[in-house]
Amino acid sequence: MTTFTRTGNRAANQLRPVRITRHYTMHAEGSVLIEFGNTKVLCTASVEERVPPHKRGSGEGWVTAEYGMLPRATHTRSDREAARGKQTGRTQEIQRLIGRSLRAVFDLKLLGERTIQLDCDVIQADGGTRTAAITGAWVAAQDAVNQLLGSGKIPQSPLLQPVAAISVGIVQGTPLLDLEYVEDVDCDTDMNVVMTGAGHYVEVQGTAEGVAFTRAEMDQLLGLAEQGIAQLVQLQQQALQNTP
Amino acid sequence: MTTFTRTGNRAANQLRPVRITRHYTMHAEGSVLIEFGNTKVLCTASVEERVPPHKRGSGEGWVTAEYGMLPRATHTRSDREAARGKQTGRTQEIQRLIGRSLRAVFDLKLLGERTIQLDCDVIQADGGTRTAAITGAWVAAQDAVNQLLGSGKIPQSPLLQPVAAISVGIVQGTPLLDLEYVEDVDCDTDMNVVMTGAGHYVEVQGTAEGVAFTRAEMDQLLGLAEQGIAQLVQLQQQALQNTP
Amino acid sequence: MTTFTRTGNRAANQLRPVRITRHYTMHAEGSVLIEFGNTKVLCTASVEERVPPHKRGSGEGWVTAEYGMLPRATHTRSDREAARGKQTGRTQEIQRLIGRSLRAVFDLKLLGERTIQLDCDVIQADGGTRTAAITGAWVAAQDAVNQLLGSGKIPQSPLLQPVAAISVGIVQGTPLLDLEYVEDVDCDTDMNVVMTGAGHYVEVQGTAEGVAFTRAEMDQLLGLAEQGIAQLVQLQQQALQNTP
Amino acid sequence: MTTFTRTGNRAANQLRPVRITRHYTMHAEGSVLIEFGNTKVLCTASVEERVPPHKRGSGEGWVTAEYGMLPRATHTRSDREAARGKQTGRTQEIQRLIGRSLRAVFDLKLLGERTIQLDCDVIQADGGTRTAAITGAWVAAQDAVNQLLGSGKIPQSPLLQPVAAISVGIVQGTPLLDLEYVEDVDCDTDMNVVMTGAGHYVEVQGTAEGVAFTRAEMDQLLGLAEQGIAQLVQLQQQALQNTP
Amino acid sequence: MTTFTRTGNRAANQLRPVRITRHYTMHAEGSVLIEFGNTKVLCTASVEERVPPHKRGSGEGWVTAEYGMLPRATHTRSDREAARGKQTGRTQEIQRLIGRSLRAVFDLKLLGERTIQLDCDVIQADGGTRTAAITGAWVAAQDAVNQLLGSGKIPQSPLLQPVAAISVGIVQGTPLLDLEYVEDVDCDTDMNVVMTGAGHYVEVQGTAEGVAFTRAEMDQLLGLAEQGIAQLVQLQQQALQNTP
Amino acid sequence: MTTFTRTGNRAANQLRPVRITRHYTMHAEGSVLIEFGNTKVLCTASVEERVPPHKRGSGEGWVTAEYGMLPRATHTRSDREAARGKQTGRTQEIQRLIGRSLRAVFDLKLLGERTIQLDCDVIQADGGTRTAAITGAWVAAQDAVNQLLGSGKIPQSPLLQPVAAISVGIVQGTPLLDLEYVEDVDCDTDMNVVMTGAGHYVEVQGTAEGVAFTRAEMDQLLGLAEQGIAQLVQLQQQALQNTP
Repeated sequence: MTTFTRTGNRAANQLRPVRITRHYTMHAEGSVLIEFGNTKVLCTASVEERVPPHKRGSGEGWVTAEYGMLPRATHTRSDREAARGKQTGRTQEIQRLIGRSLRAVFDLKLLGERTIQLDCDVIQADGGTRTAAITGAWVAAQDAVNQLLGSGKIPQSPLLQPVAAISVGIVQGTPLLDLEYVEDVDCDTDMNVVMTGAGHYVEVQGTAEGVAFTRAEMDQLLGLAEQGIAQLVQLQQQALQNTP
Repeated sequence: MTTFTRTGNRAANQLRPVRITRHYTMHAEGSVLIEFGNTKVLCTASVEERVPPHKRGSGEGWVTAEYGMLPRATHTRSDREAARGKQTGRTQEIQRLIGRSLRAVFDLKLLGERTIQLDCDVIQADGGTRTAAITGAWVAAQDAVNQLLGSGKIPQSPLLQPVAAISVGIVQGTPLLDLEYVEDVDCDTDMNVVMTGAGHYVEVQGTAEGVAFTRAEMDQLLGLAEQGIAQLVQLQQQALQNTP
Repeated sequence: MTTFTRTGNRAANQLRPVRITRHYTMHAEGSVLIEFGNTKVLCTASVEERVPPHKRGSGEGWVTAEYGMLPRATHTRSDREAARGKQTGRTQEIQRLIGRSLRAVFDLKLLGERTIQLDCDVIQADGGTRTAAITGAWVAAQDAVNQLLGSGKIPQSPLLQPVAAISVGIVQGTPLLDLEYVEDVDCDTDMNVVMTGAGHYVEVQGTAEGVAFTRAEMDQLLGLAEQGIAQLVQLQQQALQNTP
Repeated sequence: MTTFTRTGNRAANQLRPVRITRHYTMHAEGSVLIEFGNTKVLCTASVEERVPPHKRGSGEGWVTAEYGMLPRATHTRSDREAARGKQTGRTQEIQRLIGRSLRAVFDLKLLGERTIQLDCDVIQADGGTRTAAITGAWVAAQDAVNQLLGSGKIPQSPLLQPVAAISVGIVQGTPLLDLEYVEDVDCDTDMNVVMTGAGHYVEVQGTAEGVAFTRAEMDQLLGLAEQGIAQLVQLQQQALQNTP
Repeated sequence: MTTFTRTGNRAANQLRPVRITRHYTMHAEGSVLIEFGNTKVLCTASVEERVPPHKRGSGEGWVTAEYGMLPRATHTRSDREAARGKQTGRTQEIQRLIGRSLRAVFDLKLLGERTIQLDCDVIQADGGTRTAAITGAWVAAQDAVNQLLGSGKIPQSPLLQPVAAISVGIVQGTPLLDLEYVEDVDCDTDMNVVMTGAGHYVEVQGTAEGVAFTRAEMDQLLGLAEQGIAQLVQLQQQALQNTP
Repeated sequence: MTTFTRTGNRAANQLRPVRITRHYTMHAEGSVLIEFGNTKVLCTASVEERVPPHKRGSGEGWVTAEYGMLPRATHTRSDREAARGKQTGRTQEIQRLIGRSLRAVFDLKLLGERTIQLDCDVIQADGGTRTAAITGAWVAAQDAVNQLLGSGKIPQSPLLQPVAAISVGIVQGTPLLDLEYVEDVDCDTDMNVVMTGAGHYVEVQGTAEGVAFTRAEMDQLLGLAEQGIAQLVQLQQQALQNTP
């Protein structure tokens, strides 16, 4: 361990304060504002009574995600993707990741021929937007599923277990949990880990931004991520226990 | 006048509760969440030290706006424009209106060769998003201008006076101020009015959605709008008087 | 009133010479070349025996418009939108305005499940192309409707009354009817007014290009527009009385 | 020869009535309406004091063309390319052909570093729009060049000789000159020929729409085209001799 | 004839070495690598049990082609069309030519309601890619047809006869067969000729790149092309006689 | 271990036959066909004496990659991205991965202000195209670097060490090295690993396609990948030792 000091003297294995606000907007079947410190992502889950072509007639549903960032969610303004006329490669990568992560905990047969469309929009960015999005989208999806159950449209929940995600990385030689922006730009290795409530991996994406990393470093990072995700799953449960 | 009853027994000439929250996000030079009842629009003002090609070398600055709606800001989810690959005609119409409205109260020479980029993103929609956007964008622009003044980049404010906007319309024969969504879909005539703090018109856009409207009706609508905008200008001033 | 002098000593409340040539091209069900002085717009009405998705199975028809400008219709050549790969915001705004204006005088039920597609293409531009387009498109639409009536496809006209449009504006302090290009670039306030044959408003779009305008100025402009549109409606009727 | 009868008893080797109207619109440096029977194409030539990147600093100019068709120039309405967001392959093929044909008779060095932009827009289509466009564009280009010469911008004409074009084809076994639409849809072989005033080939594009064609047939078609183009070159000269 | 010397002392009327490799890739119903000297084009024929909208319900099939060039098939890298987001006009022109050429020898009724999709991708370019593509695509199409016949899906071959193509041109006054790249960039006239096995023309596309060409020159070029295509048709047959 | 049997009785920890063919095409500075069994990817490295905007004036170069798949590289034909007008999210994800992987072993300062553009085009797909692309692109990059060194443009190699990649996965409970297509579609977990010649990680991307995977399974997969990559690095070296 080095002498690297985190904002607010946060410990290397400590999450930023996480806040999960349900029913943040009024129209969506699930609507969650999730905050990891200064990172704020609005995750909505919309139920649509149709499926994409590859699922039509299959008896199965579909879960998919889109991701966006408000132009001034970041330090300097980034171009509005709608005005540029296309989503960046980064955006597409992230929304594909969110979609796969959520589908990993869904039984699409139990969902029936309908779609849960997740929209994750970053209101303010300070590192870790994609992992916050996955963690928040799961809560929004749960609210949408509860509404389907409540209305009798489905008899049994298709949401099999929780899923949550966190970033870890090595900054100036120190493995850290839940990187904020200044840590992220400075890190040698950046890893996003998505795990189920049962502690199994859904996605592991590690990238050497600077020097390549060793197996020992990877093991340290996976250990940090496991701890962080276990806490996030608890926070998801707490949020859902609050009425309504 | 008919027996039409508004939500919460609102009077025909009464605004919905308006809330203006400054510094809503942390990166932008101006960042305002404006709420007209359930309509919530995040307006950010970004200062960029460059101008578009038609202003280069002119000694003048530029003020422009972009508008967007989160996919689930509305009752049913609308397609994400970034994913569709283009902005709708409606979006373009609105962002051009916001840009013109703000430029009407700017002295671009005093701004110097820099751009104030306004981003108006609808978090939740319940009617009147474009007029809320204009009203909030002005406050965000004022915060950005104050920062330019404070940093000594400009010696004199280029923002000459307030500008604010409101919708009015005729619903079941009754002229109403500040239409919410259920009124908007039901109205025969819909008018958006943009006025300066001095009570002069910047834009008037009236559309007969059902039957064409008479001169007398138009006069009634203009009167309602004038009252509403005067109140909005006061609310803008109050918001700015709060520290910082 | 100031000493401002118009081309050809035209009076402030005088239209430019208006010419309406029906059957200008041979394929369309309605084909009208409309000229307001040097502004020339070709308006065609095409009948298509299908409707867009949102009208399928409704028993109702649809009326819609597209607008374009030949690249060298203007003083300096403008980019061809087809080559740029998208329509400008201005183009979209105008074609939406034309479509709304025409729909305001159509009974879509009487039209039956078919579409009248209006194409307004500017051959030569000298101010007022959108208002000329609306005025000419109505004549083209009437010709198309007459053909539907003549062929027995519909028993009763869905075109309930005339619609016409004119621009008005304040140039160097003087309110003027029917702005030509040199007046348009010099004006402080520019207003497009669309009215029915009965003298009711369909659209009013006023914009302060320079200084904001007062209620008194607005009243003057509306008065000028009302006179001009009454004359245009007469010219439309005369054009239609010419055989065939 | 068969018993095939052409509209108006036109002979197999006879052009449709050709009309060339100069100064058809007022803004362009050259503006020509060319009519081959019912086919009407507006050809404008715009002089722009800049060149595309591959000519910058070369001391040479550029000549290029764009082609378009008004949506209802044809029997049934075709989609507006600007609205679809791209030009069809056919449009691109045609505008590339027009550009190459005109460049073949230009000395780009004598033009200097400027561009002549040709816009060929089909107002009404009845077969042969691309060959009419080339023939008309040459006249428009000549008018633009004359204006450059008149203003002293260039001392010597860069337009070395005329160029004109015609379609020929085999319909029901009969070789025909200048196909109109009903002949075009029925033809087995369709050939577009572009020749200089000196009677040399610039482009020959022959296509078997039905059965492949023999060398003997090709020779007949080339002979017809040669006659037709010689007449077109005369008509171009006559049009230019009319004042101004 | 001049003293112009071709690579490897190739005679003016001599093809480059042509190699046709069937079954070059394993998934497509027909897969042919065709080489004209250093020009290498991979032509695949894919059978799809559906037709485009304009053929649905007609009982007829469709044959169409797409063309592409790997970014570094050429001397200097050209932009990847997929990354640019559109195909160039040249690409579209070529793929339309390939499609027309192949359809000219197909009886679409005998094909039944299915599509043969030809993909011609240039692995290495050294002149003549479009004519190599046509020549190779025909072999790939024959393999795909043979598979349809073998599987009993069609009782009779819809491929009526061979089709092949070659480029000819005039370089420094000398008419040459089968231009390689250094000849192509230097030529005054460039002609692509597509002929059937029976020696009839499907397409003739001649372009004066420099000075316009005479009828006598054209005749020489057509003669060269006829010889070259006769040899290519023999090479196609030989390639197909090799098992399987 | 289960009773799962691989094609050709391949062992679970055995690579498919790997072939690396340098100088596969003639124009590119580096051109490598890499084959992993039936997967064939053409990797070219092009040296361009310019850098993208974010590197201009930095003294540093850039390394970037694009990826594509020929339409019929796969079992059923996939749409041509150039014709669709955009690259899929999958394509963008892959080309970003290739670019990051290669940059991880480059010293951009030593490269100087020039770009190495890698193009990886899949000629035939049978699983593992992205990892083959990385492995082959490194060899192509080395050839391009050698040419820069040979021509004296750079004094010292900017390519610091090898990089190679392999896929691993769990199929029917068995961890396997180097998945072919039939294994890939059937696998529960799919992981792509990119490592340097020194055995350090550049990228790890693991995805649970079916059930989430455990830490123990992950460890097994990482072990397999490490073995495979060590072999690939040897094969890269052998290929480069062959003259020239």
